[in-house]
Amino acid sequence: MHAMYVTRDRLERREKIAGVTALPSVSYSITVRLEVPAGGSTVSKLTTAVEQAGGLVTALDVTASGHERLRIDVTCAAADTAHAGRLVEVMRAVPGVEIARVSDRTFLMHLGGKISMEAKHPIRNRDDLSMIYTPGVARVCLAIAENPEDARRLTIKRNSVAVVTDGSAVLGLGNIGPKAALPVMEGKAALFKRFAGIDAWPLCLDTQDTEAIIAVVKAIAPGFAGINLEDISAPRCFEIEAKLREELDIPVFHDDQHGTAIVVLAALYNALRVVGKDISGVRVVMSGAGAAGTAILKLLIAAGVKDAIVADIAGVIHLDRDGLSPELRWIAENTNAAKYSGDLKGALAGADVFIGVSAPNILTGEDIATMNASSIVFALANPDPEIDPAAAGEHAAVVATGRSDFPNQINNVLVFPGVFRGLLDAHSTKVSIEMELAAAKALAGVVTDDELNASYIVPSVFHPEVHTMVAHAVRDAAGGKAPVGEHFPDDHPTL
Amino acid sequence: MHAMYVTRDRLERREKIAGVTALPSVSYSITVRLEVPAGGSTVSKLTTAVEQAGGLVTALDVTASGHERLRIDVTCAAADTAHAGRLVEVMRAVPGVEIARVSDRTFLMHLGGKISMEAKHPIRNRDDLSMIYTPGVARVCLAIAENPEDARRLTIKRNSVAVVTDGSAVLGLGNIGPKAALPVMEGKAALFKRFAGIDAWPLCLDTQDTEAIIAVVKAIAPGFAGINLEDISAPRCFEIEAKLREELDIPVFHDDQHGTAIVVLAALYNALRVVGKDISGVRVVMSGAGAAGTAILKLLIAAGVKDAIVADIAGVIHLDRDGLSPELRWIAENTNAAKYSGDLKGALAGADVFIGVSAPNILTGEDIATMNASSIVFALANPDPEIDPAAAGEHAAVVATGRSDFPNQINNVLVFPGVFRGLLDAHSTKVSIEMELAAAKALAGVVTDDELNASYIVPSVFHPEVHTMVAHAVRDAAGGKAPVGEHFPDDHPTL
Repeated sequence: MHAMYVTRDRLERREKIAGVTALPSVSYSITVRLEVPAGGSTVSKLTTAVEQAGGLVTALDVTASGHERLRIDVTCAAADTAHAGRLVEVMRAVPGVEIARVSDRTFLMHLGGKISMEAKHPIRNRDDLSMIYTPGVARVCLAIAENPEDARRLTIKRNSVAVVTDGSAVLGLGNIGPKAALPVMEGKAALFKRFAGIDAWPLCLDTQDTEAIIAVVKAIAPGFAGINLEDISAPRCFEIEAKLREELDIPVFHDDQHGTAIVVLAALYNALRVVGKDISGVRVVMSGAGAAGTAILKLLIAAGVKDAIVADIAGVIHLDRDGLSPELRWIAENTNAAKYSGDLKGALAGADVFIGVSAPNILTGEDIATMNASSIVFALANPDPEIDPAAAGEHAAVVATGRSDFPNQINNVLVFPGVFRGLLDAHSTKVSIEMELAAAKALAGVVTDDELNASYIVPSVFHPEVHTMVAHAVRDAAGGKAPVGEHFPDDHPTL
Repeated sequence: MHAMYVTRDRLERREKIAGVTALPSVSYSITVRLEVPAGGSTVSKLTTAVEQAGGLVTALDVTASGHERLRIDVTCAAADTAHAGRLVEVMRAVPGVEIARVSDRTFLMHLGGKISMEAKHPIRNRDDLSMIYTPGVARVCLAIAENPEDARRLTIKRNSVAVVTDGSAVLGLGNIGPKAALPVMEGKAALFKRFAGIDAWPLCLDTQDTEAIIAVVKAIAPGFAGINLEDISAPRCFEIEAKLREELDIPVFHDDQHGTAIVVLAALYNALRVVGKDISGVRVVMSGAGAAGTAILKLLIAAGVKDAIVADIAGVIHLDRDGLSPELRWIAENTNAAKYSGDLKGALAGADVFIGVSAPNILTGEDIATMNASSIVFALANPDPEIDPAAAGEHAAVVATGRSDFPNQINNVLVFPGVFRGLLDAHSTKVSIEMELAAAKALAGVVTDDELNASYIVPSVFHPEVHTMVAHAVRDAAGGKAPVGEHFPDDHPTL
């Protein structure tokens, strides 16, 4: 699988669409090693030049100094790749400056990968070896052979999650294949550890065949307590997940579907608290009927939404529309009772909630103005929302996006670590919609009445309690009894 | 796959076969929590009782003390499971002793598993998040999509090995299945890290179908730089390895075959140095034609052995024997030119070297006495050798076994960490017989002329240089150029 579907051109085009208003971000930090004449005002000219070009100098380290020349590492944040290139050019244009090397901080953090495997016990001598490996390990193997459930007690299984992708729908980048997907999966694994103490390992598959993916995940399941499917494109992701949920005795969770759905529902609970409306009475209009859209819709219905309309690229979905796939037919049967057959903009008139998981810039402020009073707009297309959040904010009471540079970021990182912590602690064999509802309620509940307002409907991923509260809720809904976080209880095996 | 092929009975039977002469080992250490009366001589009676019963008290911790009673944790090494039970009984029989709990140190070390996944960078705030995960990670993904070879620079691939088993031939325990195999694979991963800095993750497969295993390993390959096949039974292991070597662009190494073959050849090189014979002139008799036996034979022939005879459970293999499988036919065609058709014992007469990878106690000292002068005996059946090494030592010049309680332990741990370190550092796409020969020569060369003697033909796995020397040799044979151990060179990516 070496077909390339995206190029750097595409990233740069995407950045252009995002506009020149983007602020400098450390995710585009560069470190420029350069030499300048010792003495004189070259250094101050340099920093001025960077700042006039819209960059942000975040560090300036003199790494070598002589009578004639200084060697300096200038670290600065740029808005995007093209902007970083321009910053290098303005530095190069300062008289006396010689550029030696340009490093990209994000790339530097990725050198050699972002995760590692570590042994929990030192192996100092033959005694250690005889317990960790042969001959001692044989008795542990036999104990598990006699009682396979002991694998959750005596092996990594209890705390391990496989992060599985085929690289077919990675971030907003599309079908970039398994190797190029690896940095995302490593990042996900790092987040699993950081926020929930879970040992996750990425498995990036060299196949995009539905049956093959199902067979691979079934085969590798014995060593894991959960499967996190990631960035697998629709509609294959539905069948893969459904089949695996049916056949495996460990929970299977496609984060792009259910993680997104849970955080959207949590945000909606709190947005409704802000505007004082009840979930069973609101009219919800959605744009997008892919993996995320379908999962959001199903969870909203389970949570009590009674009036929803969904549009995809071909217009609003209704029972009389031609060529409905089984997935779209399900949507048609469970939404749009009035069989409205107009377009998205028409559907918006009089709606209380808009949820977009579709495409950039498809709506304007005028469209939002046609919604009910105290309307709620979640424009989640990434990286560019369905509507400019500032324009939406002129008419809506609550606005949320998927972007980190606006308030109310709808971010799956709020959900998946706690969900899996709860599943693992409960030794759960499945994920149910009840657990997802419990997770959404717990996540919404992290925001207290005192804290709640239109710009704070979801907590920060660094909130100290968010992951534990989600984990507790999921564990309880799963019927688990182990205290959350007590991964290694004091259960001494006896002879 | 829940079929159970072994039971604790079998382990205990095995221990009985091994005999009551076994010494106490920490791999059978138990910690007994008990209470005794304060004052008096109960504690000394306790330790005396353990020692009289053949146990070894290695620690005695008072964990609580009062006027009336003491609570003590007594840790002691036993010879085997039954012996540990007897030690508990003799402690219980000491007047005044009350046993509270018996813990098994080896089991305690396995609680929750022996390895973990760790993130290399802290995730402290949104800036860290934006580089490790979205949006910064997208640029790294695109760089790899444009140039897939960059996966070796920017992801865990460069240093990751999958340890893959189907649980069909685990240690000497047989077909115990994937969950019960996990403790061995975790131990292997821990050894990869300890001795070669490699990040290995166990994949225990819920299938024993040859084609399915091949498909799974091919699918998970993109995220790894090497595949270590482990404890897969013959003859499936041959086809699985051959097919994967043909189809994958990363090295595939079945340790039970090639790891064993390399360490046997290294030991043979040094044993021949001890007795002053040349490899091209010796007559080698082997017992065992499974995965290890076949690999050993092939490597010996590549190393210059010209006269070999192999026996399996049905007797000596020769061209006229009925019902030869393709594997056995290859052996018949490449050994036993004289078409000797007697039994193993008959073949031994006049041989210089015996190598057994078969079954316990099939030979006696008298059989060894019929070999040539200065004979070499490698009796590697585990846990009980083909011949009692003491009996062999009465007639042979050099004796080696697979056991850790005799000199000259033939241990794969001497080989696989360094072999993979060399393969990874060379970015090798394959393992060749030249690399295996180089590894064996390097391992043999760790033992200097001054150190070499009949009881020291292989170094300790804790020898400070052994893994580096093997890695260097393999890397050079693979044509690699990176300095061994420099896993993260200073290659700053530029814009």
